[in-house]
Amino acid sequence: MITVLKSNATDEQRNQLIKWFEEQGVKVHVSVGEFQTVLGLVGDTSEIDMDMLKLLDIVSDVKRISEPYKKSNRRFHPEDTIIKVPTKCEEEVEPGNVKDGFALCGGGNFAVIAGPCSVESEEQIVEVAKRVKAVGATMLRGGAFKPRTSPYAFQGMKADGLELLSIAKKETGLPIVSEIMNENHIDLFEDVDVIQVGARNMQNFELLKALGHTKKTILLKRGLANTLEELLMSAEYIMAGGNEDIILCERGIRTFEQHTRNTLDISAVPALHEMTHLPVIIDPSHSTGKASYVRPMALAAAACGADGVMIEVHNDPPRALSDGAQSLTPDQFDEVMSEIAKVREALK
Amino acid sequence: MITVLKSNATDEQRNQLIKWFEEQGVKVHVSVGEFQTVLGLVGDTSEIDMDMLKLLDIVSDVKRISEPYKKSNRRFHPEDTIIKVPTKCEEEVEPGNVKDGFALCGGGNFAVIAGPCSVESEEQIVEVAKRVKAVGATMLRGGAFKPRTSPYAFQGMKADGLELLSIAKKETGLPIVSEIMNENHIDLFEDVDVIQVGARNMQNFELLKALGHTKKTILLKRGLANTLEELLMSAEYIMAGGNEDIILCERGIRTFEQHTRNTLDISAVPALHEMTHLPVIIDPSHSTGKASYVRPMALAAAACGADGVMIEVHNDPPRALSDGAQSLTPDQFDEVMSEIAKVREALK
Amino acid sequence: MITVLKSNATDEQRNQLIKWFEEQGVKVHVSVGEFQTVLGLVGDTSEIDMDMLKLLDIVSDVKRISEPYKKSNRRFHPEDTIIKVPTKCEEEVEPGNVKDGFALCGGGNFAVIAGPCSVESEEQIVEVAKRVKAVGATMLRGGAFKPRTSPYAFQGMKADGLELLSIAKKETGLPIVSEIMNENHIDLFEDVDVIQVGARNMQNFELLKALGHTKKTILLKRGLANTLEELLMSAEYIMAGGNEDIILCERGIRTFEQHTRNTLDISAVPALHEMTHLPVIIDPSHSTGKASYVRPMALAAAACGADGVMIEVHNDPPRALSDGAQSLTPDQFDEVMSEIAKVREALK
Amino acid sequence: MITVLKSNATDEQRNQLIKWFEEQGVKVHVSVGEFQTVLGLVGDTSEIDMDMLKLLDIVSDVKRISEPYKKSNRRFHPEDTIIKVPTKCEEEVEPGNVKDGFALCGGGNFAVIAGPCSVESEEQIVEVAKRVKAVGATMLRGGAFKPRTSPYAFQGMKADGLELLSIAKKETGLPIVSEIMNENHIDLFEDVDVIQVGARNMQNFELLKALGHTKKTILLKRGLANTLEELLMSAEYIMAGGNEDIILCERGIRTFEQHTRNTLDISAVPALHEMTHLPVIIDPSHSTGKASYVRPMALAAAACGADGVMIEVHNDPPRALSDGAQSLTPDQFDEVMSEIAKVREALK
Repeated sequence: MITVLKSNATDEQRNQLIKWFEEQGVKVHVSVGEFQTVLGLVGDTSEIDMDMLKLLDIVSDVKRISEPYKKSNRRFHPEDTIIKVPTKCEEEVEPGNVKDGFALCGGGNFAVIAGPCSVESEEQIVEVAKRVKAVGATMLRGGAFKPRTSPYAFQGMKADGLELLSIAKKETGLPIVSEIMNENHIDLFEDVDVIQVGARNMQNFELLKALGHTKKTILLKRGLANTLEELLMSAEYIMAGGNEDIILCERGIRTFEQHTRNTLDISAVPALHEMTHLPVIIDPSHSTGKASYVRPMALAAAACGADGVMIEVHNDPPRALSDGAQSLTPDQFDEVMSEIAKVREALK
Repeated sequence: MITVLKSNATDEQRNQLIKWFEEQGVKVHVSVGEFQTVLGLVGDTSEIDMDMLKLLDIVSDVKRISEPYKKSNRRFHPEDTIIKVPTKCEEEVEPGNVKDGFALCGGGNFAVIAGPCSVESEEQIVEVAKRVKAVGATMLRGGAFKPRTSPYAFQGMKADGLELLSIAKKETGLPIVSEIMNENHIDLFEDVDVIQVGARNMQNFELLKALGHTKKTILLKRGLANTLEELLMSAEYIMAGGNEDIILCERGIRTFEQHTRNTLDISAVPALHEMTHLPVIIDPSHSTGKASYVRPMALAAAACGADGVMIEVHNDPPRALSDGAQSLTPDQFDEVMSEIAKVREALK
Repeated sequence: MITVLKSNATDEQRNQLIKWFEEQGVKVHVSVGEFQTVLGLVGDTSEIDMDMLKLLDIVSDVKRISEPYKKSNRRFHPEDTIIKVPTKCEEEVEPGNVKDGFALCGGGNFAVIAGPCSVESEEQIVEVAKRVKAVGATMLRGGAFKPRTSPYAFQGMKADGLELLSIAKKETGLPIVSEIMNENHIDLFEDVDVIQVGARNMQNFELLKALGHTKKTILLKRGLANTLEELLMSAEYIMAGGNEDIILCERGIRTFEQHTRNTLDISAVPALHEMTHLPVIIDPSHSTGKASYVRPMALAAAACGADGVMIEVHNDPPRALSDGAQSLTPDQFDEVMSEIAKVREALK
Repeated sequence: MITVLKSNATDEQRNQLIKWFEEQGVKVHVSVGEFQTVLGLVGDTSEIDMDMLKLLDIVSDVKRISEPYKKSNRRFHPEDTIIKVPTKCEEEVEPGNVKDGFALCGGGNFAVIAGPCSVESEEQIVEVAKRVKAVGATMLRGGAFKPRTSPYAFQGMKADGLELLSIAKKETGLPIVSEIMNENHIDLFEDVDVIQVGARNMQNFELLKALGHTKKTILLKRGLANTLEELLMSAEYIMAGGNEDIILCERGIRTFEQHTRNTLDISAVPALHEMTHLPVIIDPSHSTGKASYVRPMALAAAACGADGVMIEVHNDPPRALSDGAQSLTPDQFDEVMSEIAKVREALK
């Protein structure tokens, strides 16, 4: 951490501040310049409140040099984390890597999570599960608890939806992914393999803490207005509780552009890969809000090194109870899968 | 709702769609143009999924005409809602209106909510409470459960903090305002008069639903990347549960500008006053993140018709455990109060 | 400037870099820490390319400590700049300060610039000029060259519009303000007292350079996505040419919020007052895009210490050729002026 | 266009408005609902001012249905436009399509524009030109006039830089691309094959108009805060003047995220392909600001169907006079080119 003093700071004030820093256990290196003096703080500065420092009359600026995220930081954990989700599906070829009874994500292994936005009926979820499995999806997604902007909109089938997902899991062997909105529901997610935290709950710290005490893989979606650093700080909340099985998901951020529902921040893929060892997947469905943009965005994800994609697939999109406009038909999904495979093969 | 058909839609397709709309209980008025046909839908269209409609081959666009918020909509409730919070303080002069045992907010009554970001000790909270009461604050704020980006940062005194707030309430008569982060904590908030929902939880729909079943006034803060319409939809979640005592709070939105912590959207005041009957207050402390900008922003709020302000005051800002950089000293707060009073008097 | 070295930098590499810095004429202070070494650079670092430095293998981060703006920096020019625009109007009372033949802006003097978005006819501009002068406007605005998103929209009366403004100036004595879009038009602006640079041209550096060589006061509007620092850097372009008569104008930034046309960044007023000695005015018309929000935003501007406002007034808003929706009638403007006067009187 | 009337509009008012619309030459279809009446306007509504309409007392909302861009609209020009830039290079294999003496962009042909941010010397630009040509670049870029935020930063070699580009063109046969900042410089660009309009000048309408009267291909970059629709409206300015040879370029938009210099809006590729027939290329260098993100973003561009990329390449990035941090070395560029070729081959 660097503390810049104003030129009007007296020697006494400066020495007082240096003494205070030393009491906090950090070493101070002083650089005296013509217009300002710079204090370089060395040691564990995580307890020092930057905002407080800035308030002092003699301080002109304070800058942090090291990242505030620790357990997720690649600096201290250089190898890619590979997430392993138990599956009953057999090993498959690219894309959608499955090995030794696990669907993998990260470290060169590409996860394909597909399924409807909302679970609507046993028939629907089982049919979609079979269809997406047939062309290489490695996990089945389906919303049971749905966060909706309006209290008057369909809120999901809730616990019944989770039961239908379990049936689809039994029928196909695919591990299942579903979103949680309330820590009190954790028990209901016993048979769910990957618990999703939605964008709106990315900074629901109470929920994150509770999930840190589970043994489930967490799929953590980036909030609509959250920085990559904040995404990693939310991962830290889960990791601090002991659960280090986290998949990060970029799903579009909110910008001034209104043509697409959100703006897919594709550069989050190389950026997060540099910052963290956790795997990063892309959700081309929610980020664009348009079925016709899902294919090109999924291919972009595969080409730029994402560790997977999460795609909405519905057997009958125009009749879907939510987010129909962005869902692919199974046939369209099939085509995307075959092109993803080609891109990944080409870049091997 | 308006549905625009593509020019290539056949008469049969058009009639089929019209029939489907009529089955949903809405009347359809058809305008045939040279390049496109427009269907005007009249009646309750809240059940019709716009995104789904847009997916149909023959549909080129769908536009909603009426607002999706109902209970908070000024159209159906033209008079200002006046929130009444029980207080033991006596009637006071401007600003910070107190009448008949209630601190008021809305309909020309100006609420002044002041206090430290975090409750730190009995001595601190009682001292601040006395100081802010003396110059006209009508409610005491203090954080007990603190949402922090980092799991390694101070998380608040939790239940102990709420108890200290109760002591300050007893000593001064001021009603108390504190933030909730978890529906499981509602019982702990029994003595809290106004429960705050923070920006990060504005779309924590499970929490909103739970608060809809309480009898407490809710202070609902706008999320960092949420539109005014979404803020009202979150108010709807609370109102749909039966609790209509809501104060809306603009506290800065996230933009590209980095000089201030957030960007205070001051035009939210006239905009929300047009859209809704609920009162709207401004938080100049969190929106700017700088103590020196609090005074000008509080005066702007008073001048443009806000129904109150929420200001961080700390007896010793440089030593505050959180957000010290944006807190006023009691003396600075005193000055702001006297200037707010002048502005409000001038514009009466 | 601070340069942080990676822990793997060898002593030789470090010494080489230090030597290079010293060749550039800056002194280097070294702080060796456990995990990293920090080089504090003292002296004129404006020639050192931060991005280039960051590229070096041994460098982990580079941070600038001093502001890149110089002539506009309050640090080197603590007193407020007061802009003086020659006027033939007599001295007036608050608001809209006129003294000794000059309309003033800055240093406690409040400028009121009012008039139609576009000049449409002699009758229109003269009538509006008389009306706004009567209630205290100190300058007349009127667009002759209009930047329009669409090439098919009305582009202004151009040179003819400037002549009509001159007539209105002769009739009322009010100095005139009009927007320039092309450096080749500078000669046409001879009789214009304040030349406006619109938001879209804030970083049209060629235009800024050309205006730096004129003797006119420049009204520089902040771009829709420009930071406050960039606004000051654009002012530097003009000042570097020798013209230091600049009024800064906040007119709304582009955010995700769509209810208002732009988001008025009201905290730009105290922020710019801290950063620079140049005066700062607010444009409540373009920032909100709605006539009904102009009054509350103009009052907010007056209350928070802005050095003036720029308000669109039209004698017949519904028939205005551009931006009718945000224009006030002369009667509405009258009311705003009287309330601004009250607020300024109250806060004296 | 749709005009929604308020429920309190009288029959007389409604009929008056309808009569006025009919005088403007548009047909009106009326849909009377319980709460509101909707007027569907059919015909050429481009002259009707939406903002003005909204101002009327009886009007509650106005919505435009058809797009405001015409010449660039794919609706009226369904086939892809293929831009042909004369070249002396021979035909090449993928990527970077050259045929019959033209470098192509659009309609399945992929343009690769590469070169340094700034032209610095003859030796530099000729060396880079040879290197990028050798691995398949089809055009050479080099900045001669540089838009810099600070007036104190290097502003480019100007006319001398253009001459050095001509030398490099002669030596290699590659067509050249360079940025213009002032319409008065058009004559200097005689030997330049593609004139670039930078992000900051995207709405410099005077410059766009002047370029509309040239015969040069224009590379139009999206502004930092401009919507896709605005980008097309700026293309309309050029096309309205008679010049329809335009390449659109997405180069990152400004958002709250600070980790990357800008946020690459990769979904602009499929979105613009749907909206317009003009080709769309991606600039992975300026959008991310980091050399290490250029490769993954260029691959994403190739995979999602972009019509080309524009990449900064410098023979000695750490010593580059501008934007060194985001430039590739020729070796790195070589690798990106070979991977782009693989992706394009795979997706053929």
